[in-house]
Amino acid sequence: MANIREIAKEAGVSVATVSRVLNGYPYVREEKRNAVWEAVEKLNYTKNINAVHLAKGKTSIVGVMLPYVNHPYFGAVLEGISKEALRHRYHLLLFQTNYDVEKELEALEMMRMKQVDGLIVCSHVAGWEIIAQYKEDGPIVLCEDVGDQDFLSVYIDHYEAFAKALRYLIRKGHRHIGYCIGRTTGTNSKARETAYYDTLRQVGVEPRKEWIFDHCLYVEDGKRVIQQWIGMSEKPSALLVSSDQVAAGIVLWGRKEGVKIPGDLAIVSFDNHPISEPLQITTMELPLALMGTKAFRLIYHYIETGNIVKKKEKLPVRFMERSSV
Amino acid sequence: MANIREIAKEAGVSVATVSRVLNGYPYVREEKRNAVWEAVEKLNYTKNINAVHLAKGKTSIVGVMLPYVNHPYFGAVLEGISKEALRHRYHLLLFQTNYDVEKELEALEMMRMKQVDGLIVCSHVAGWEIIAQYKEDGPIVLCEDVGDQDFLSVYIDHYEAFAKALRYLIRKGHRHIGYCIGRTTGTNSKARETAYYDTLRQVGVEPRKEWIFDHCLYVEDGKRVIQQWIGMSEKPSALLVSSDQVAAGIVLWGRKEGVKIPGDLAIVSFDNHPISEPLQITTMELPLALMGTKAFRLIYHYIETGNIVKKKEKLPVRFMERSSV
Repeated sequence: MANIREIAKEAGVSVATVSRVLNGYPYVREEKRNAVWEAVEKLNYTKNINAVHLAKGKTSIVGVMLPYVNHPYFGAVLEGISKEALRHRYHLLLFQTNYDVEKELEALEMMRMKQVDGLIVCSHVAGWEIIAQYKEDGPIVLCEDVGDQDFLSVYIDHYEAFAKALRYLIRKGHRHIGYCIGRTTGTNSKARETAYYDTLRQVGVEPRKEWIFDHCLYVEDGKRVIQQWIGMSEKPSALLVSSDQVAAGIVLWGRKEGVKIPGDLAIVSFDNHPISEPLQITTMELPLALMGTKAFRLIYHYIETGNIVKKKEKLPVRFMERSSV
Repeated sequence: MANIREIAKEAGVSVATVSRVLNGYPYVREEKRNAVWEAVEKLNYTKNINAVHLAKGKTSIVGVMLPYVNHPYFGAVLEGISKEALRHRYHLLLFQTNYDVEKELEALEMMRMKQVDGLIVCSHVAGWEIIAQYKEDGPIVLCEDVGDQDFLSVYIDHYEAFAKALRYLIRKGHRHIGYCIGRTTGTNSKARETAYYDTLRQVGVEPRKEWIFDHCLYVEDGKRVIQQWIGMSEKPSALLVSSDQVAAGIVLWGRKEGVKIPGDLAIVSFDNHPISEPLQITTMELPLALMGTKAFRLIYHYIETGNIVKKKEKLPVRFMERSSV
């Protein structure tokens, strides 16, 4: 790669002039400006796009912070983001965090350093006060209900979706209801927990902590859940399951153990992943890809125009009644 | 963000000196160099990391070219890449291509522009002669058998894996064998097609083009396959299915239609995704995440040391005999 001195020599101007041109400062005579760009082209200096980014102050890259890349929930959100980014010729810089605050901070720092033009936060563990410190550094869009917090967000109301599914189970006569969840911390998980406690108490049923199954993310976690369930002396008659993958595991491993769905155990799941249809799992369709698409649109519009179309947008869910209840 | 002139003023040096320091050129007196970096820090100039990249000639970002982000095969490869990148504090720039040559070129061009330090190509449609043009611009690692081509690669021998699965079906008495595949172009798909024709002809069986089911990527594609299969006057008695997701769809939708697996239709699948276990699908385990991890290690080692550990590495597959044949 040519350096600034070589360009200056080639263009017959001073190093300071090259700097000024590359950094986009005014007050350089057009003749000299042209000479610099010609030299740049001749010496292939633009092959280092970091110089261009430095000059433009923009990278056309959006950061995506997410705990896991190969997970049905986040995979679907990422797909939505990616499709929309593709349409606008933007690229995505992935920050897989494994829910490690330090990794989340790295993503935020990289936005501060202008490595990305903005950041889509699919999920996080860092507190609001930490994220808020980066608000001046670029647009941040969260894929969750941020409540009173002053952030851009596109979200699914997990409280409402969970409460709706619970009320359905209650209407169907269930009182012993447990649930399966990916983790117990985080905004979405807290919303679900609150919905669980609120909704059951509204009908005079005491929620049971031992019926909350944690770390349920993949098909194989369904195996663990059904085995635990079989071993329980007091069993829930119904489970809300936060992911169709886990629900598929429960149904399929349950069948092998002779557990009848819904006879022995009723299930309402979430996502409406294609696997839920042939298994006849009643599920709440979550518009995950759409959430990603809308999150990208919001951040893109802000980066390109400086305007915000809609600060917070709640996306609708759809109940798919099948025959697992 | 401060500009070079402001830094020069703050440091009490010329703009040319600031340029030289930021670009890492020698022959700047230490006193002046320190003054520049102090000014840089004071004025928060390093907040634009593009200047740092420009100076270092390195971004600690690796590009990942893949057709789809939310696909079980590529999702698993991406997971392997991502975990290893995380360990080495590298980040990933995603290039989702949808198998569009133009998008693939964009990824290659961005490596040329030093936006990324190297590129992992999970799958591509661009010809070898196109990719070869970018070999001087940075390390490229392919996740496929590149044959005689002079590229770095970590791969699964899909010919061998496919032939092995076919021979298993033949040993079990099947002669009417078809297969399901994601697409019919591409190195891996061609390898499978060749394995299909070679292996069947070796036992004197004529391969049947109409028993090749194209565009099979997701669970829902299994529904289409089983419906087509039901409607066929001459049916294959066994199918090789290139993805467990599609196989799960075939088994589950088949059950609903009264198709007995393996009685009516035998299945050997690929991946060993967790869904295949409760469905008792015989499958060839493909080390997809490991392929991603090894691809990252290869490129990382090259970026950091300029050395190549192993130019081409073939990864072993594992046959998981269950009861779908």
